[in-house]
Amino acid sequence: MKDRADSSRQLPGPPEERRIQLSHGSGGGMSHALISELILPAFDNPELRRLADAACLNLGDTRLAFTTDAYVVDPLFFPGGDIGTLAVNGTINDLAVSGATPLWLSASLIIEEGLPFSILSAVLASMQKAAQYAGVQIVAGDTKVVPRGKADKVFVITSGIGRIERSIQLGPERMTVGDKIIVSGTVGDHGIAVLVAREAFSLSGAVESDTAPLHELAAGILRDGGTGIRIMRDPTRGGLASTLNEFALSAHKGIRIEETAVPVRPAVRAACDLLGFDPLNVANEGKLVVVVAPEAVESILDGMRRHPLGAEAAIIGEVTPDRPGTVTARTALGAWRLVDLPMGELLPRIC
Amino acid sequence: MKDRADSSRQLPGPPEERRIQLSHGSGGGMSHALISELILPAFDNPELRRLADAACLNLGDTRLAFTTDAYVVDPLFFPGGDIGTLAVNGTINDLAVSGATPLWLSASLIIEEGLPFSILSAVLASMQKAAQYAGVQIVAGDTKVVPRGKADKVFVITSGIGRIERSIQLGPERMTVGDKIIVSGTVGDHGIAVLVAREAFSLSGAVESDTAPLHELAAGILRDGGTGIRIMRDPTRGGLASTLNEFALSAHKGIRIEETAVPVRPAVRAACDLLGFDPLNVANEGKLVVVVAPEAVESILDGMRRHPLGAEAAIIGEVTPDRPGTVTARTALGAWRLVDLPMGELLPRIC
Repeated sequence: MKDRADSSRQLPGPPEERRIQLSHGSGGGMSHALISELILPAFDNPELRRLADAACLNLGDTRLAFTTDAYVVDPLFFPGGDIGTLAVNGTINDLAVSGATPLWLSASLIIEEGLPFSILSAVLASMQKAAQYAGVQIVAGDTKVVPRGKADKVFVITSGIGRIERSIQLGPERMTVGDKIIVSGTVGDHGIAVLVAREAFSLSGAVESDTAPLHELAAGILRDGGTGIRIMRDPTRGGLASTLNEFALSAHKGIRIEETAVPVRPAVRAACDLLGFDPLNVANEGKLVVVVAPEAVESILDGMRRHPLGAEAAIIGEVTPDRPGTVTARTALGAWRLVDLPMGELLPRIC
Repeated sequence: MKDRADSSRQLPGPPEERRIQLSHGSGGGMSHALISELILPAFDNPELRRLADAACLNLGDTRLAFTTDAYVVDPLFFPGGDIGTLAVNGTINDLAVSGATPLWLSASLIIEEGLPFSILSAVLASMQKAAQYAGVQIVAGDTKVVPRGKADKVFVITSGIGRIERSIQLGPERMTVGDKIIVSGTVGDHGIAVLVAREAFSLSGAVESDTAPLHELAAGILRDGGTGIRIMRDPTRGGLASTLNEFALSAHKGIRIEETAVPVRPAVRAACDLLGFDPLNVANEGKLVVVVAPEAVESILDGMRRHPLGAEAAIIGEVTPDRPGTVTARTALGAWRLVDLPMGELLPRIC
């Protein structure tokens, strides 16, 4: 976990011996290595190379956002949500942070033989509830069944289409030295909630997943911030650390954060201390990070804090000219540390 | 397998005891029952109720087609193709038979821990090759890894977006008594190829999967047939029998076919005889069925036969006023039989 971000770009071992490890799905350094060494070269095209949360596509006069995510979370149900809620909110969020109004979703299900209908029904009901809440429709679907032991209960794969207004331009290339980094609320809630549910830890102070649709919050930010908005992302797998590293690497700028400025629930901090996790590496499912020009900070923060999902929004750092491609944090003790892409598999099947 | 189509609409047993069976993924009667009893009521909306291969969506002046499919085929590699080829061609075909020009795909991968990189690379290369061949781009993706034994090697989930010209109107409601049914070539090739590869049967006369992109063939049909084209579909899981039953049920019309007119390769027929399968129930991955007005038949057939994927196109039957909702076939011996939705699990994990 303490390797440098640039050494994480390499996959170990000779190609013929390499096998997929759990850490390749972590959202951290190994995921980045797999994507940059195997997947991007295979599908080489400029839209995919952007590695944004959603592709931005031009169709005549219309700009579309298009995204997909597979959900394999274990357990299926956890405090604050379930795989169905997660699958719908997650795809809505990928569209929202790309500047799009989410419109339509598709849902593919891969079901293990023997799954009780009651569980499938509950997952479908959660999906529909989340879709209705966000005003999107699930318009296409597919269902596959595999024999017992060839999948784990049910996997849900959602894809989504949204519309992007022509005036909206977001991207790491717009990040400028002096820009401020804002996070919309507490980090690490989702990862810890799922871990506690899975391992049946008894931790005082129950933690709930933060799964939530960010489309309203994102739309408000775009309205309040105008061209002062540089880029948005929802820090899911790999947590805030992964998202900030991705920003720094693609923008070729440094990012400096104040660790004490990052909102973390006491129960999440306690669980992280106990389990040896850094809250910056733990997954979120209802938070966004936005990089904004200094002059836009005040109006954006005001707007965010008026929305329930942004009530605890905080400025956590800024874009710097030094150490391009890296993220540094000032600790509570005043020391500086490097915030790396997490390298190991912290929390498998977290989403 | 010999139950009536209408009895297939019911799921057996009290709700609290029901569990997903392999046959719920067969594409036959049990799949239909699962979809109509559980999934459609959960996601209730008119676009999904159409049960088309792709949703048809209006965005300003633009008409979009949107579709998704999960691929869980076993084995990953089989004569004529692999899971990557299948996943790309299958989604292209769902767009094409909906009257759309395929434009963009997304790809989600669910990978089992321990999968050799070499296998993943081969699958990715097949996907890219198929996408390039059809002129579509894979613009969005996601990769998840699950522990050993929680998935089987790799599942590939593709979604796709296409553009539909405003003039194109297809649907079962356009089917008219006297319309002809055309199939673009031999049926059952894919299902038998996968089964032979999986079970390592040694059957004389190797059968290859027919996996192929149907966008050119479909575009040609639409150009040659104009408003004479009623509906198109690619008969995948559940085979030609499922597709024709879906047509008959949604159109509330009868369908009558001549069994001897349906093209079947001798090796496929031999394998079906040996294994007790009806070629009409066996999956295809590079064939389409189109219902056309009598006056358009000649120009459409001429056009289809000029394309390599339609060289063996044949008129196999017609739309009738009697027995609405059912499909009947005249056998080689001149007897009439009911062609039902296949009810059991013929070939699990065929796509």
